[in-house]
This record gives sequence, C-alpha cells and structure tokens, in this order.
Amino acid sequence: MNASTPLLKSTFCLPPIDSTADAALTARLRREIDHKTKPLGALGLLEGLALQLGLIQRSESPALHGPQMVVFAADHGIAAEGVSAYPQAVTVQMVGNMLAGGAAINVFARQHGFTLLVVDAGVAADLPAHPQLLARKIGYGTKNIATTTAMSRDQAEAALTAGMVLMQALPGNVVAFGEMGIANTSPAALLLARLAGASILEATGRGTGLDDRQLLHKQGVLKRALARHPATEPLDVVGELAALGGFEIAMMAGAMLQAASERRVVLVDGFIAGAAALVAQALAPAVHDYLVFCHRSAETGHRLLLAHLQAKPLLALDLRLGEGTGALLAWPLVQSAANFLNEMASFESAGVSEK
Amino acid sequence: MNASTPLLKSTFCLPPIDSTADAALTARLRREIDHKTKPLGALGLLEGLALQLGLIQRSESPALHGPQMVVFAADHGIAAEGVSAYPQAVTVQMVGNMLAGGAAINVFARQHGFTLLVVDAGVAADLPAHPQLLARKIGYGTKNIATTTAMSRDQAEAALTAGMVLMQALPGNVVAFGEMGIANTSPAALLLARLAGASILEATGRGTGLDDRQLLHKQGVLKRALARHPATEPLDVVGELAALGGFEIAMMAGAMLQAASERRVVLVDGFIAGAAALVAQALAPAVHDYLVFCHRSAETGHRLLLAHLQAKPLLALDLRLGEGTGALLAWPLVQSAANFLNEMASFESAGVSEK
Repeated sequence: MNASTPLLKSTFCLPPIDSTADAALTARLRREIDHKTKPLGALGLLEGLALQLGLIQRSESPALHGPQMVVFAADHGIAAEGVSAYPQAVTVQMVGNMLAGGAAINVFARQHGFTLLVVDAGVAADLPAHPQLLARKIGYGTKNIATTTAMSRDQAEAALTAGMVLMQALPGNVVAFGEMGIANTSPAALLLARLAGASILEATGRGTGLDDRQLLHKQGVLKRALARHPATEPLDVVGELAALGGFEIAMMAGAMLQAASERRVVLVDGFIAGAAALVAQALAPAVHDYLVFCHRSAETGHRLLLAHLQAKPLLALDLRLGEGTGALLAWPLVQSAANFLNEMASFESAGVSEK
Repeated sequence: MNASTPLLKSTFCLPPIDSTADAALTARLRREIDHKTKPLGALGLLEGLALQLGLIQRSESPALHGPQMVVFAADHGIAAEGVSAYPQAVTVQMVGNMLAGGAAINVFARQHGFTLLVVDAGVAADLPAHPQLLARKIGYGTKNIATTTAMSRDQAEAALTAGMVLMQALPGNVVAFGEMGIANTSPAALLLARLAGASILEATGRGTGLDDRQLLHKQGVLKRALARHPATEPLDVVGELAALGGFEIAMMAGAMLQAASERRVVLVDGFIAGAAALVAQALAPAVHDYLVFCHRSAETGHRLLLAHLQAKPLLALDLRLGEGTGALLAWPLVQSAANFLNEMASFESAGVSEK
C-alpha cells in the first residue's frame, strides 16, 4: 500500500469467515436427525436446514434468539431512464411508511418478534432522525449506470465497511436482510449478469410491475449499461460493485460478510438481497455456509441467481415486494427446523419400531 | 327408506355448505388489497389467501382464533400386502408418541399454539384413555382392499358422521387436519385413481420410503385392488370410499364438511388429507371455498391431486411425514395473509405515490 491510497480504501478489509464444515459434528447431527420419529428424510428441506443451523452454531441444539430485520434503503440514478413503474420519490416515502409502522415488513416483523431497523445507505433526500433509522448515507443516490459508473471505488468500499460496522453493534444471532430502493432490480440484474454470467434478457424482470413495452425498454437500457462497463479481468468484485451496484446492495453485502464472520444465521430475502449475497460470496465464498435463502420471488432473474448460488429457497409464493418480506415469511420454518431437532423424540426414546 | 335400512345409514346426512362467493365483498377486499403500500399483486399467493379468508369470514378484517390440530389415526388391512416400509404396529406406537408429546406434530403445534387432538378412527388395537385422545373407533383397521372392500357402507357413513359430530364440539375458527396410519398412502392413491381418474402409476408413490422393488410391488397390489372394485356408474362417492378408503380418511372428510358448514378455515395437510378433501369435495363441491392447501408433499400422486382440486399449495418443502406437519408449517403464512390485510397502510393513508 502506498501513500496515495485513499483513506477509505485503505480501511476496507474483509472480516475472517470460517467455513462451517465439520465432519464429526455433521455425522452427529445427521444421526440425530435420522433417529427422530419420522421416516428418513421426511421433513424435507427442514432437515438440511437443521443441519446448517447446527453447523453454524457448532451445536447439536441450536438456539435462535434476538432476530434482527435490517432494511437497507437507497436510490439509483438509473431511475432517470424510466426503468421502474414507480417514481423515485417512493423510496423516501416508503422509508417513512416503514418508520411509521405501516409497510408489509412492519406487519411481518411484529408478527414474528423481529426488531426492525432501516438503514439510509444512500436515499436521495435528507431523512429526519428516527430511533429505528440508521443514517449511513454514502451519497444522495448512485449515479446513472447507463451513462457512468454507479459509485466510486471508495464509495463501494465505504458502503461495504459501513455494513460490517453496523452489523457488529446488533444483538442476537439471526439477522434478516431486506431493502427498499426504486429501480434497484436494475443494478441487481447487472450484477447477476456480470458475476454469474447471465444474459441481460435472463436477468431482467418486471420489477414492481412493468408492462411488456416497459420491460423491453429496461432490457435495452441495461444492455447498454453493461456494454459501457467492460468486465474486469481477472474479475475485480469491488470494482464491478462500484460500476454496476447500489449503495444498499453494497452495504448489505458488507453486513452479510460481517454476520457470517460472527457465525450468525443470515436470512436472505429476494432478488436484491440475493444480488448482495452474490457479491458477498464472490468476495468470500465461505459466507455461503451462513446464508438461508428464504424464497424465490417472481422476478425473472431470481431463479438463475439462486441456481448460481446452489440455493434451494424455502418459499416460492410469487412474492415481488422486497423489503425483507420473504425472509420474515420464511422465518417460522427456520424456527421449526431448530425445534424439531431440539424437541422431537427418537425411535429409541419413544419406543417406536424402525423400518 | 324401508325398514331394512340399517340405523347408521339412515343417520347420514351432509351438512349444508354455502359457497363463499360474494361479488360485492370480493370487490371491496380486492380494492383494499390493491391499495396497500406495495405494487399490485406483490404479495403473491398471500393476496388470494387474504381474499379467501375475508370471504370465509364475510369480513374485511378476518380474525383467526382458537386453532385446532386434529390427527385422525387408523389402520389398514392392505398393510398385510407389504405396501409400507414400516410395520403396522407403528400406527399405535406413533399415536402413543403424539400423546406423549414427542412427534413432529407436537413440536409444531407447540410452536404455533395449536390445540392437538388425536382421534382413534380405527386403530387396530385398544388404546388407553388420554385427555387428548378421542375414541371414535369404527373398527380395528379396515379389511384388506386387495381382497375385499375396505369397509361396509354403514361404516363409511358412520365414519363421515363421527367426523361431523366431533367437529361440532371444537372451539375456534381454524382447524388443521392430519393423519397417522401405516399403509394409508395406498387407499389415498386408490381414491385419487378412482375420483380423479389418475392411473395407478401416477397415483402411487414411495410413502414412508419404499425402494424401487417395493414400489413396483405396491403398484401391482394397487392395480389389482382397483380392478377388484369396478367403478360405480354414476359415481357413488360413499360407495367408493367404503370400497377403497380408510377410516381416518372417511372421518376426516366428514370433519372437513362440517368445518366448512360452520365457515371455519380448513388447513389441509398432504397426500392423505388431500384424499379426504377429494372425497369431501366430491360429496359437496362448495367445501373447496374453505380449504387452504398447505403444501405439496414429495409423494408422487400429490401433485396430480392438487391439480385436480385446482389448488395452489403454499409450501413445497419435499415433506412426506403426514401427521398434519405441512399444515402447521404453513399456518404462519395464513396468519400473515390476515395480518397484512388488517394492518398494512394504504397508499392514501401513508402518503406514498402510486404508479
């Protein structure tokens, strides 16, 4: 590192993330799961989830507590290209709605006992202070990716770092990630195209509700945007994030990395949170062990994104709301996975005959 | 009706079930759902579910309370043909496990605040009394369908009636149905074949875990069983239920009909509960309006059964446990549907811009 390295850049440093792989513990957990009073494998995806929870917590009796819902909000210069069904002002309005308790994410957070925090990662307006709002604004929205890079490398690193730092202060051992940001399916689609090799056609969806003509327009804008930013070789993930990303995506990726470093269970919401997971995993592959992919949304590219991450989502309810709603809707299943592991009788203890 | 009609037969009578169709209320509910602060349709399957709950309760603010989990247990003569991976004794052992609180269904009932009842609809053993056990035994298991009819018509009607009567005594406005019965995927597959026109190949699955050779054997047994019982013309649903069914399936069908008649929300578990729903719907098509299909199991025929009932299940977790586990795992989603309808802000109330 030389003297000309800017300060922000020099402070960026990935947290250490351990793989959860542990052959002996895996064998003990598998044995315990297989001896519960049920046919082998009969709890389907919940069985793999129970194993994952046990490995994350290095325990045969995983215990989940203090669940946090963190919604990262930011604006996107590319909104100026008409790629969203809603005006940019909706980002700040929806942040207000969340802070007032009226959004879908508030309803589900109350239902499931999550503490809700909203992070201003880069909303294009000044937001009044609120006890549930963390002011971590990197800028007043990204620049328009269709004409220039979304943010500087320093900003990308600052966003990643801010995500890590804010995560350190949160209690509990479960964290759900969601977002709010008009036009943010566009940077997510671009990151999917670049980091997973998807075509713009495959990666681009209707977002909050584009019609056929608007979708074609969005695809054209994103094709041009991708062409403007030739891929780095070898792939420079932070550089790609700066060129194509969003402040909320970058900050969420940083928070995911930190959460994994602290061995928390990470609940990943839909397409945008998935793009953050894609970035996080490209930076530190071991983060994957800590991620629970909560749902597959109706957004076109999400199926591809999940396949690239080798993720089997828990829900597929045709959601396309974001905010973290899919993560919270899946949460009771995560609890059920821990509960069956902790509470079900075994064939031996219950005196039930095996096959 | 002449003097030779047995008593049981003469007491059988379907409860009146109203369709929930209500154009004016549907319009009001749709308007309310569409004006919540989210893109149109963005809550996916939960939106149709919220509409269904509103229509069932004839209310724009549906309220769910006193949820009951009822597990119907019975044995099946066809178990003697080696169509299950487990010995018949497991039915009574698993009932004991449930009454002791150690089965998967107990774990999920505790998690979600359901009252759990187990109904002895026809277990092949005497069961000691227990406060959570309802003794409604129609017989000590059905006869072997491969060689004779499963039960008499009187028994089928007695089982349907017992299901109706026990339902009347239960509190709350939500009821989940599950089952326990070694070999009961066989009668379910036969009812699917007969009532929905599926082939035995399509309808027959691995149950609790048959291998390829055992699956072939089961298919052969079920083909012969179906051939032994030519279809009634016109279709006599109770006759088919008597020929091919199981005591737990018949009693559950009766309980579903009664629950719908009382405008309760009915949570339908997997393949066996689905077969009971098939019977109930064949007897009274309006029952469909009250059924929430909670999951699609890994059992081969379940996809076909759901398609026949035009049902979109909430979960698809590769479960194949029965008991009612899929119904309880989906329950928080049903609550979420009611909650978003009752609690989310509208665009107007939150001051958020529309498209």
